[in-house]
Amino acid sequence: MGKLTDLSVWHSLKQESIVMNRLENHLKVLGSQPNRINQFSRKGAGLFYDFSRQRVNEQAMELLFELANVRHVQQQFERMVKGEIVNSTENRAALHTATRNYTNEPIWVNQTNVMPEIEKIRNEIKEFSEKIHQGIIRGSTGKRFKDIIVIGIGGSYLGPEFVAQALSYYADQGMNLYFISNVDYHNFVSVVSNIDPEAALWVVISKSYTTVETLSNTQAAYAFMKEKGLDPAKHVVTVTSKGSPGDCAENPVIQTFHMFDYIGGRYSVTSAVGAVPLSLYVGYDRFERFLKGANEVDQHAQYAPLSENIPLISALISIWNNNFLGYEAQAIIPYASPLCKLAPHVQQLYMESNGKCATLTGHQTTESTGVIIFGEPGTNAQHSFFQLIHQGRTIPVEFIGVVKPQYGKQPKSEASVSNHEELWANMIAQASALANGKESQDMARKFSGNRPSSTLIIDDLSPENVGRLLAFYEARTVFEAFIWDTNPFDQFGVELGKKLADSIRKEMTKKNADSSYSFDTQDNITKYYLNLLYKG
Amino acid sequence: MGKLTDLSVWHSLKQESIVMNRLENHLKVLGSQPNRINQFSRKGAGLFYDFSRQRVNEQAMELLFELANVRHVQQQFERMVKGEIVNSTENRAALHTATRNYTNEPIWVNQTNVMPEIEKIRNEIKEFSEKIHQGIIRGSTGKRFKDIIVIGIGGSYLGPEFVAQALSYYADQGMNLYFISNVDYHNFVSVVSNIDPEAALWVVISKSYTTVETLSNTQAAYAFMKEKGLDPAKHVVTVTSKGSPGDCAENPVIQTFHMFDYIGGRYSVTSAVGAVPLSLYVGYDRFERFLKGANEVDQHAQYAPLSENIPLISALISIWNNNFLGYEAQAIIPYASPLCKLAPHVQQLYMESNGKCATLTGHQTTESTGVIIFGEPGTNAQHSFFQLIHQGRTIPVEFIGVVKPQYGKQPKSEASVSNHEELWANMIAQASALANGKESQDMARKFSGNRPSSTLIIDDLSPENVGRLLAFYEARTVFEAFIWDTNPFDQFGVELGKKLADSIRKEMTKKNADSSYSFDTQDNITKYYLNLLYKG
Repeated sequence: MGKLTDLSVWHSLKQESIVMNRLENHLKVLGSQPNRINQFSRKGAGLFYDFSRQRVNEQAMELLFELANVRHVQQQFERMVKGEIVNSTENRAALHTATRNYTNEPIWVNQTNVMPEIEKIRNEIKEFSEKIHQGIIRGSTGKRFKDIIVIGIGGSYLGPEFVAQALSYYADQGMNLYFISNVDYHNFVSVVSNIDPEAALWVVISKSYTTVETLSNTQAAYAFMKEKGLDPAKHVVTVTSKGSPGDCAENPVIQTFHMFDYIGGRYSVTSAVGAVPLSLYVGYDRFERFLKGANEVDQHAQYAPLSENIPLISALISIWNNNFLGYEAQAIIPYASPLCKLAPHVQQLYMESNGKCATLTGHQTTESTGVIIFGEPGTNAQHSFFQLIHQGRTIPVEFIGVVKPQYGKQPKSEASVSNHEELWANMIAQASALANGKESQDMARKFSGNRPSSTLIIDDLSPENVGRLLAFYEARTVFEAFIWDTNPFDQFGVELGKKLADSIRKEMTKKNADSSYSFDTQDNITKYYLNLLYKG
Repeated sequence: MGKLTDLSVWHSLKQESIVMNRLENHLKVLGSQPNRINQFSRKGAGLFYDFSRQRVNEQAMELLFELANVRHVQQQFERMVKGEIVNSTENRAALHTATRNYTNEPIWVNQTNVMPEIEKIRNEIKEFSEKIHQGIIRGSTGKRFKDIIVIGIGGSYLGPEFVAQALSYYADQGMNLYFISNVDYHNFVSVVSNIDPEAALWVVISKSYTTVETLSNTQAAYAFMKEKGLDPAKHVVTVTSKGSPGDCAENPVIQTFHMFDYIGGRYSVTSAVGAVPLSLYVGYDRFERFLKGANEVDQHAQYAPLSENIPLISALISIWNNNFLGYEAQAIIPYASPLCKLAPHVQQLYMESNGKCATLTGHQTTESTGVIIFGEPGTNAQHSFFQLIHQGRTIPVEFIGVVKPQYGKQPKSEASVSNHEELWANMIAQASALANGKESQDMARKFSGNRPSSTLIIDDLSPENVGRLLAFYEARTVFEAFIWDTNPFDQFGVELGKKLADSIRKEMTKKNADSSYSFDTQDNITKYYLNLLYKG
């Protein structure tokens, strides 16, 4: 694909952004148009997406649809779903959508239909989780498992944690779920102090089984089991690639569940990475409902026309805010405590996918790519950083609302408003305040308004809807990359740090073997810190 | 104070930033200067602050010190510490520093010495926490307290949570600590499902005792106690202003601890707000050690010369990165799991304090104020959003390292490197990779480098050092405001949303009383959401 800046639609959008900065296009004007909410919102695939408080008008939206069209984003999505090698820098397909595919259609990757292996894993996990819940598989002392400890980092952690929190209402299998991610030993100790070692099932998740943090924590887990006189072969399962060191007869475990090279870490929640812990936590049936919700959004992303396509519209607005209006960040604010880990998950998903400077054709990107994603649940966020969003720099907000509360019986406040209604009152008020602002002679009490937000509504926190949310953010993420012509599936940016850490680790190994060793590194600052640590 | 943009030093800094963008000033060049780390780092007040990988040279630093000088930032700090009405929009002093003051000097606010009331509260909390730990004060069924549930939001939550996590290693009083902040009922249910109601001590924290979320959760707690047949008068303490509805004979509680109008919520960790939960959790003596560490940094911020003043240098570099180099965000990455809640705390502290558009003289600010703060602990962050920081947009990073591990006995990896050494290897490597980058013909594997970071080192995670960290960020936050001439102590930006929520709540109350009620609001979008909720 050619340069973005060579596209005539890109130039038209730049022109349109100047028009949009006129006073007559302030959000308080746009938002007061009687039909605004109907015209600038969409329903589909179980989602309601409202962009009436984004700084767009009909012309801007038409140009954005044209941009999507000339960049063939839906065709690119289809190529991805069909198993083509869309992750070209790593010569891989990107088939997270296949892990929730329930059609009987084959999906071919290099002439091999991958659906049988995907279905096989699903069935293995269904059977395994049921055997655990029925007490058929037990620990080495015969105790039923009740503490599930996931050892994994990055994509093997953030996605499963988000979904586990979101579905915690459904955790009726008597299982506690813990995550050990960081190499800091404190993380390990604080988790194991809560568990019953005999009832502990360790789920080690690592595609390559070479991730330093995960290996280190796994080693600590094995030492812990040994100390307690437990047999790791009866307390550990692994989720890893076929033939990795975690899938090896010399290292016996209860069972190994395979993951495949066409599933990237940050897109892996619907693969065995999420399936094993989540099926254990909420039951396989609910995990399958979660998959089906995700699949519905995948289908919508693939087939809904441009102008009705919710994740695509969201991606276009994100690009508009970033490349045309110049906003560098986006806040994700779910008015629902169970979605407290959505923002950290999307932070990884989106920033690792879209924090890129190379196009697929090997050129430097001409425009800035991914923005900063951060967020906390509402109303908490209102009592934290919302001051800045109202009166400091402009940060587009994505509000997320849930129509039906999980807890019907809720105390009513003195104003006869339930907790759930209170959440809504605040969510609605914030979007309105940001958009409309308020005049004041007193500068400290003046609100300039014109601060954009979207609102994404789901009906309830069912497994299907959590799946829809997951797939919405995945589709939006790749759509943006398809417009920039960048690769949302690789992450070479993390490699330099890893390589430098390797060389520093070698210095430490030498020092640990011989305390008189003088550090040998060209970098004075690195040497300074090595000396500081060993002197300390 | 006059406009920033009228200052000649501001113009000189703008010129200097152009010089700094020259290739010869790339961080890989600056960082290779043999004496760089010694010249661009400072030790003091138990902290080591390294800014050798910030994009500054001697000239830039001299101009920044001149800026601090002409804006009288240390004099402003002194006025704050001495109890002058520095929060001019609310006509209040800002005396968080007094809560950890241990000199015998009086501090006068409007002709009243406030130290006696501060010392009185400290003693009350010491005595109270000891009586709880000794089992002298017990619940209404005679059980010893073991579950502390803090109900509070924003400043009554994020600070205490950060410190509690940071000091969790010292939680030897047999107490579990929980926080209920969000009005979402899920937050309440997930906490109470873990506690023993008879052993539960509820700490309700609200300065005004009118915060909707806190009142709603308190109401739920009272209903919960009633259901369990427990007497709230023997299970609740309040932290609130003298004479508030939470300090009222009609509403009997075990004890009420006062907070004062000269302590803002986000600066309140060292007041009763933090003192009550933290003394219960780790013991009063350790809480006092935490206060003394904070006090040491306060003294340093007040008295250390400009060029040696660590929080001030950090503030100046933050301003340099923001207003001169144009970076809109900052990531806080502690290589220590116990500091996992530092970034959310500083996010509130800094963004609520510095997300402002009005100067103290009532003019619109001419330059952008506070940046976006976000972060996760390392190494987790490396497996999440670091891709973007290495190859996407530039985000200055503040690394935080701890020299001595809490757990001496740590498993060694195969490379004979302990978990703690692994954390350091990664922290050092990331700063180096960001600064130096790496050339490559392959655009996807090219690292442009020149990405700035600071490193802040503490010796260990002692209570003193956690206090130092807290006070470092507080001082840095106000120093930046002192340069912009903005008020870091008010938060009028949150009021419009509150007001709009009030009017929406009234509509809900009417609807709840009469289901045939038609919503009456000018705002079509608001009306749409009200109908959606009540239809749903």
